[in-house]
Amino acid sequence: MKMSEFFMPTLREVPAEAVIASHRLMLRAGMIRKLSNGLFAYLPMGLRAFRKVENIIREEMEAIGVIEFKPPVVQPGEIWRESGRWETMGDGMLKTKSRTGMELVVSPTAEEAFTSLLRDEITSYKQLPVSVYQINTKFRDEIRPRYGLMRAREFTMKDAYSFHTTDESLDETYRKFGRAYRKIFRRCGLSVIPVKADSGAMGGSGSEEFMVESEIGDNNLILCPKCGYAANDEKAQCARDTLPESAGNIPAKEKYEPIDTPDVKTIDDLCSFLKTRPEFFIKTLIYRVINCELDLSQAPGCGNLEKIRSENGQDYYPEAFFAVCIRGDLDVNEVKLAAVLKASEVQLASEYDVERLTGAPVGFAGPVGFTSAPVLADESVVSAGGEVFMHNAVTGALKADTHFIHVEPGRDFTPWMSADVRTVKAGDKCPSCGAEFYSKKGNELGHIFKLGYKYTKTMNMTYLDENGSRQIPTMGCYGIGVDRTLASIVEEHNDDDGIIWPVTVAPYQVAVVPIKYEGRMKETADMLYKQLSGKGIEILLDDRDERPGVKFKDVDLIGIPLRIVVGEKNLPSVEIKTRGGKDTTLIPAEEAASYTENTLKDMLKDFTGEE
Amino acid sequence: MKMSEFFMPTLREVPAEAVIASHRLMLRAGMIRKLSNGLFAYLPMGLRAFRKVENIIREEMEAIGVIEFKPPVVQPGEIWRESGRWETMGDGMLKTKSRTGMELVVSPTAEEAFTSLLRDEITSYKQLPVSVYQINTKFRDEIRPRYGLMRAREFTMKDAYSFHTTDESLDETYRKFGRAYRKIFRRCGLSVIPVKADSGAMGGSGSEEFMVESEIGDNNLILCPKCGYAANDEKAQCARDTLPESAGNIPAKEKYEPIDTPDVKTIDDLCSFLKTRPEFFIKTLIYRVINCELDLSQAPGCGNLEKIRSENGQDYYPEAFFAVCIRGDLDVNEVKLAAVLKASEVQLASEYDVERLTGAPVGFAGPVGFTSAPVLADESVVSAGGEVFMHNAVTGALKADTHFIHVEPGRDFTPWMSADVRTVKAGDKCPSCGAEFYSKKGNELGHIFKLGYKYTKTMNMTYLDENGSRQIPTMGCYGIGVDRTLASIVEEHNDDDGIIWPVTVAPYQVAVVPIKYEGRMKETADMLYKQLSGKGIEILLDDRDERPGVKFKDVDLIGIPLRIVVGEKNLPSVEIKTRGGKDTTLIPAEEAASYTENTLKDMLKDFTGEE
Repeated sequence: MKMSEFFMPTLREVPAEAVIASHRLMLRAGMIRKLSNGLFAYLPMGLRAFRKVENIIREEMEAIGVIEFKPPVVQPGEIWRESGRWETMGDGMLKTKSRTGMELVVSPTAEEAFTSLLRDEITSYKQLPVSVYQINTKFRDEIRPRYGLMRAREFTMKDAYSFHTTDESLDETYRKFGRAYRKIFRRCGLSVIPVKADSGAMGGSGSEEFMVESEIGDNNLILCPKCGYAANDEKAQCARDTLPESAGNIPAKEKYEPIDTPDVKTIDDLCSFLKTRPEFFIKTLIYRVINCELDLSQAPGCGNLEKIRSENGQDYYPEAFFAVCIRGDLDVNEVKLAAVLKASEVQLASEYDVERLTGAPVGFAGPVGFTSAPVLADESVVSAGGEVFMHNAVTGALKADTHFIHVEPGRDFTPWMSADVRTVKAGDKCPSCGAEFYSKKGNELGHIFKLGYKYTKTMNMTYLDENGSRQIPTMGCYGIGVDRTLASIVEEHNDDDGIIWPVTVAPYQVAVVPIKYEGRMKETADMLYKQLSGKGIEILLDDRDERPGVKFKDVDLIGIPLRIVVGEKNLPSVEIKTRGGKDTTLIPAEEAASYTENTLKDMLKDFTGEE
Repeated sequence: MKMSEFFMPTLREVPAEAVIASHRLMLRAGMIRKLSNGLFAYLPMGLRAFRKVENIIREEMEAIGVIEFKPPVVQPGEIWRESGRWETMGDGMLKTKSRTGMELVVSPTAEEAFTSLLRDEITSYKQLPVSVYQINTKFRDEIRPRYGLMRAREFTMKDAYSFHTTDESLDETYRKFGRAYRKIFRRCGLSVIPVKADSGAMGGSGSEEFMVESEIGDNNLILCPKCGYAANDEKAQCARDTLPESAGNIPAKEKYEPIDTPDVKTIDDLCSFLKTRPEFFIKTLIYRVINCELDLSQAPGCGNLEKIRSENGQDYYPEAFFAVCIRGDLDVNEVKLAAVLKASEVQLASEYDVERLTGAPVGFAGPVGFTSAPVLADESVVSAGGEVFMHNAVTGALKADTHFIHVEPGRDFTPWMSADVRTVKAGDKCPSCGAEFYSKKGNELGHIFKLGYKYTKTMNMTYLDENGSRQIPTMGCYGIGVDRTLASIVEEHNDDDGIIWPVTVAPYQVAVVPIKYEGRMKETADMLYKQLSGKGIEILLDDRDERPGVKFKDVDLIGIPLRIVVGEKNLPSVEIKTRGGKDTTLIPAEEAASYTENTLKDMLKDFTGEE
């Protein structure tokens, strides 16, 4: 492509709206433009890189036998009602109605669409397993879209789904996808951190997220330097760190008793006042729990809760309250808590609700004698098996300016349930090897997930097994954000001058830059253009009437891997330089094409996707 | 691809819902499935053919220097408000709102998006002309989606837009697109009828539609067998066919006078009653006109009409009424009428409105003495220049059971405006050469259109010319419906057994069908599969454990251009047959690959796109 015939409006100034490198550089390199908040257009140069990523994904999907479909982007609401997600997907799902009143959804994901399509086609175990995918437009109505392609409202996702007769078959496909994903990201030049949801006790079942480190990442990754344990803090677990007996963590002989704690506002205040440590304080937080699917019919304080039956037959409580007890030096992780409570969301209760439920102002909640809501104890306090890990503890006394001391869990209160809901942090210990965790912020690029029967069951997908009896298939789903992958490549590969594309995803592999596009320089540049194009190499020829400085700056900004400069003083040689490197090589123009071809082949070797 | 690893659920029975060949055959061949009314999913086999069409379009766009963008599918409502189409696009545009209340549109077309994107980038005449395109998802909320891909709600469109400093530059690009479109459709094996909107007096400006003949087409094409004139009846004109003087079409000397016409319900009744011909009757129809942009401030009966100023500054009347007079043997074409009145829609007025405006029941409207709405005369009655073509005519008398006779247009009434609004039909005469028109039903596959300044002006796109003064560029737009093109190929190329894909768009070029996939037959089939794949030929190997009849039927249904049958009795030869042809050729298996390669090359020659 000759630049004069292309459309690449590069910018010298840094757009004010862009705070991260990929957003800034892709705007400056004329690759993307914002049409509106969270809605981006790819310009031609950006689209070329986008297609490269798309094709790498497509090739690796085909390589493991996944078959491409193209369902519609706009989907009927009825299938979302069938799965039950019409209500539970929340406001992030863009809904509308047709002129005839039919409910429509701009697809945020496609479990429903593929289950609906395949349940009509799959009738026999002989047709299973089957793995299908699409690469298509998705929409999620982010409240605060930002960081360019990294968190846009419209985006392109590769989403794959597999259907199986057995767990073993699902496991096998799941592992295939895991390998394919590693290959895809390696081919894109990305360092990903695969994060298993439950690398521990649960064994086979589960999911794996593919993360890239990012200062603006919306995930906190908990990482073990020794054994490779890696988990999102929304799922991370850690080794037990109960305070030893030597520190005084021994059962209280005394009965618990109230003490006045005037002017005590914080745990630190309390520790100073009582001359104790946060590890002896049982922090009690009142949570408002939305759409809880646990059976609360026998739970304290839940007798009068409204209960609703969703369209797929699942009962849930639109609003419930829980008191959550946790060791005073720890924090509750709300995502872990919501998962444990099978809720769509949890949030700290309002001041009004705290006072209503505890009979005291905020700050004096405690589990002893508390009956107006179920108590959930974090495993730092009491394990699910009932083992007690905190002794002689301090708690709020359900009364202003009052705490209890000498509280013994199990003796003085029994939680309605126990679970691991703590936020694991850097410094906590790895549950596998005991080494100290460190943490990083990350963005999720891909996710593979064993869904099991969730959709096939609610949407009534069945097949006949070897014996002619009707069975429900088990299912997996596998996503990659294409735009976010592209943006992450830029995040990982850039310098002050611009993008440094890995050769696999560069919009063009080679730029030929004549100092002036005239005379012998034009002849040589044209010759190289012809020779390289003839070899199937993607080449950008800067035939513009611009100063050499402008040309060099643009080529660096756009990030073309190889640059060939044709200048009068070097002819009949030309100057070849890689975008990342510092050194230039002088090569006779006649040999430049084959030298370039070989250099590109060498560069590609780093990105075969093989480990 | 081995069939056992593919997903192609062919159907033996004919789906009841499908009334046209493409819908029926693409369902039966396992190429598409309905997800919901007007929302289709491509299955893998259909997607392959879809991509072929898409790639042909892409290649021909690149060949004429049009550059690909990828704007979002979901667009901000604000740009549609800027252009004024937020109100005028009607209910076919799918609108919704984000959670933060931002108006959104699922793109039905993208004049606004591209104008918005490029106005920020184009600053100088040096950057023009520029031609850009996308191939992307579109949505139009059809009230009655049907005929499969032919009229779906979601579809894929290639839409291109060009921007120019001069009309000549627009003309040149417009002609390039016209040639590219012809090439695209030839490469797809389609017989298209290019229909010019105004091949006549208007000269340069205008548009051209690319139609395919179709029994369910929603366009009536008016065609001249002699000179090639071709027009949509929504735009077609014809030669003047005024009744000659010899037939009595001479000015009346008498004054017009009322006569009683009891029990006269139709024009035929009236003609019998008066012993005259429909050509002497001035038919008067009262129309309700929606969003009329004409200036009606001086028009009869329009003094009190509500007038609205749209966001782009254009005044329009949400509702107006017109009396339309036309020769009794002719019909009013409502699309032509709406265009003349610059209205978004016209519809026959309700009985209530007719009585209110004419003071008489339906059937007695007439122009003489009519003042409650402006009168528009078709050119069969009075030309725009005031020339009168009907004499001594009959009209309704604005009174029940009464008509006027001896009416002279110009003497007894003067229309507020005159225009050509008649429906041209087969049998009418060509305005260019005088030959008799014939007509066909057609579906529009593509459209090229000189938009002029409509969007660039309302959306304030400007550039600086050679003299540094600010100018508005002129614009063209160019669309092709990808799915509809694909469906039309199936409509044109099929027989009782299934689809007969042109080799350019076939999902696979060759099918290898071993009678049984075992022993020597398997060996030979595998060898051919390997050899042909090695040559880059797309091949489908039927390795299924099915009866030969089932295999043959599937290959014919899917429509693979070349079939190689490997049967025990013919070995070491194999049997080669084209899908369209009747004869089979026996070829030694060793030579089959190169024979196939040559045959495909020959077949491709018919589809080069060259005239």
